[in-house]
Amino acid sequence: MMKKHNFSAGPSILSSEVFDEASKSVLNLDNIGLSLIEISHRSKEFVKIMEEARELSIGQLGLSKDEYTSLFLQGGASTQFLMVAYNFLNQNAGYINTGSWSVKAMKEAKLFGNVHELASSNDKNFNYIPKDYTVNDDLDYLHITSNNTIFGTQFHEIPETKTDLFTDMSSDIYSRNIDYSKFSLIYAGAQKNLGAAGATLVVIRKSMLEKICREVPSMLNYKIHVDKDSMFNTPPVFSVYTCLLSLKWLQKNGGVSEIEKKNILKSTLLYDEIDRNSQFKGFANVEDRSIMNVTFNLTDESKKEIFDNLAFEANISGINGHRSVGGYRASIYNAMPIESVETLIELMKKFENLV
Amino acid sequence: MMKKHNFSAGPSILSSEVFDEASKSVLNLDNIGLSLIEISHRSKEFVKIMEEARELSIGQLGLSKDEYTSLFLQGGASTQFLMVAYNFLNQNAGYINTGSWSVKAMKEAKLFGNVHELASSNDKNFNYIPKDYTVNDDLDYLHITSNNTIFGTQFHEIPETKTDLFTDMSSDIYSRNIDYSKFSLIYAGAQKNLGAAGATLVVIRKSMLEKICREVPSMLNYKIHVDKDSMFNTPPVFSVYTCLLSLKWLQKNGGVSEIEKKNILKSTLLYDEIDRNSQFKGFANVEDRSIMNVTFNLTDESKKEIFDNLAFEANISGINGHRSVGGYRASIYNAMPIESVETLIELMKKFENLV
Repeated sequence: MMKKHNFSAGPSILSSEVFDEASKSVLNLDNIGLSLIEISHRSKEFVKIMEEARELSIGQLGLSKDEYTSLFLQGGASTQFLMVAYNFLNQNAGYINTGSWSVKAMKEAKLFGNVHELASSNDKNFNYIPKDYTVNDDLDYLHITSNNTIFGTQFHEIPETKTDLFTDMSSDIYSRNIDYSKFSLIYAGAQKNLGAAGATLVVIRKSMLEKICREVPSMLNYKIHVDKDSMFNTPPVFSVYTCLLSLKWLQKNGGVSEIEKKNILKSTLLYDEIDRNSQFKGFANVEDRSIMNVTFNLTDESKKEIFDNLAFEANISGINGHRSVGGYRASIYNAMPIESVETLIELMKKFENLV
Repeated sequence: MMKKHNFSAGPSILSSEVFDEASKSVLNLDNIGLSLIEISHRSKEFVKIMEEARELSIGQLGLSKDEYTSLFLQGGASTQFLMVAYNFLNQNAGYINTGSWSVKAMKEAKLFGNVHELASSNDKNFNYIPKDYTVNDDLDYLHITSNNTIFGTQFHEIPETKTDLFTDMSSDIYSRNIDYSKFSLIYAGAQKNLGAAGATLVVIRKSMLEKICREVPSMLNYKIHVDKDSMFNTPPVFSVYTCLLSLKWLQKNGGVSEIEKKNILKSTLLYDEIDRNSQFKGFANVEDRSIMNVTFNLTDESKKEIFDNLAFEANISGINGHRSVGGYRASIYNAMPIESVETLIELMKKFENLV
């Protein structure tokens, strides 16, 4: 069967090498005669997987092991929404509201302290990243959603602040070469650029562990997970293994700086076509466009069925936009080959000639 | 390579059919041309997987869909320790302490209300199940650990109580034919009888959802997960799929009543050998012995290396006891073939003749 061009927003495409190795491991991990998913998480084989994954997760961001540590937890970004607040929201936290996921993060945080929405792009259905706001020095932390999967916007400038900066980076971690040390805490669900859904990467500045502000249940307590080397309880072994495979694939392919070049190339090609082709219009403000999630609408929505049929025939999958934006969303994560982007662009040209 | 006899306590053995199907799905799910782990959890393919898994999880326990519902969550039993209390511990809860996992469950619950240890087998290193205790009617719930993986004990009589009964059934769910409707809430980490680590099954009496006693963060709130059909956020898709495969395998093989017969046969053969063979002694009280985790010690610990070497040569894996018990633990979950148990018994006889 012809492989599909998978533009799914998440869970989403991973490298075919990752699929191959992960599939093999379910039958027989590294030829030990046992499946990855039937061995103890305390076995030397899995302990090594966890250690390598944690080490690469820090190293590939260009962060120092002395200053940062990382965890592979469960529960997705949705659990981090409450966990960051449970641990660190003593009195006041600042949030930049750039869409649905920021809204959800704020909702959970409000149970633990005062949440200040310092800026919002809600006035224009979140099609831009707010830039004018003041961050008071007395905040416990400032929280941003670095890339907005639904709306296709991305922080290209990371806010400069003396406050500890936290970010939900679920949909753009490892995609671009920024100074990750601006963040005190980064979290990301695995299921975009990392691995199978079920693991959540948390990268945390070690000094944050001294700032936990209340008694936190063990499973929600960052310090306990760090003290237990991310093995406080049974980790999601398969998901963690796929993260390790993706991180190795990233490293082998030149790391974040090389992948960023490819991601910029892919997204530029696609945005250029959107801007050139009169049948389409981009959704996000040009200067805030995401290099991971490209959102666009038809200029004439009545022609949707025609484009949908063309896409189906071309084996293109997962490009329907989120209901709050409509139109289309092409998610072009790290593992998306440029050929799939080119196929989509050809299709847009074909559509233009057809209608 | 010769397949190992895998007695691991968890993650642990699953049916080879489950490994085969799960491995295939990572390359190409049901021939759709995409990997299970790269499709949207909102796709019709995955929605069907989740629906089937939830339906079978209830049905195979002999419970009614009208009265009960089920969820596949994340975070393992360790997250359920805090979640049951966060949702339902208004003032007073009773716990029967039958080992390390009960202790952990109580620890987390104490953050939310008064925890009453109604009985404990701590006095004899948890080698038995307490039977004499009184349960007051005014408790918010009574919590038991139905099977104690570390100590090899199991509740063969489920407590009769008017209070809502909760159980951690991580290591014996689907292993025996009991009246599951005695419980108002059952939870189980997937990684013993169900599937790959990363999913946690929660079976809950629907009427419990009206008893949530405080404002609970979304990811910890049972009602929200039920209202969202166990898809409030991205589920651990691979782990859920392995649970579905195991539940189908269970159903095909006659369900819980048939597997119970096999489990009783396997455990009886092994306990009989432990009792017969003067080189071994069982750890758990005879009447409280688990049919899932068989704990035993050498009568002469100085001969441990000899037995360990024999086991290694026989391709037996994962039988070292937990450090708090020492000796050996043979975990013989649903998927463990009787041939592996017979291999272990032969080995015990061989050891007897050798030393």
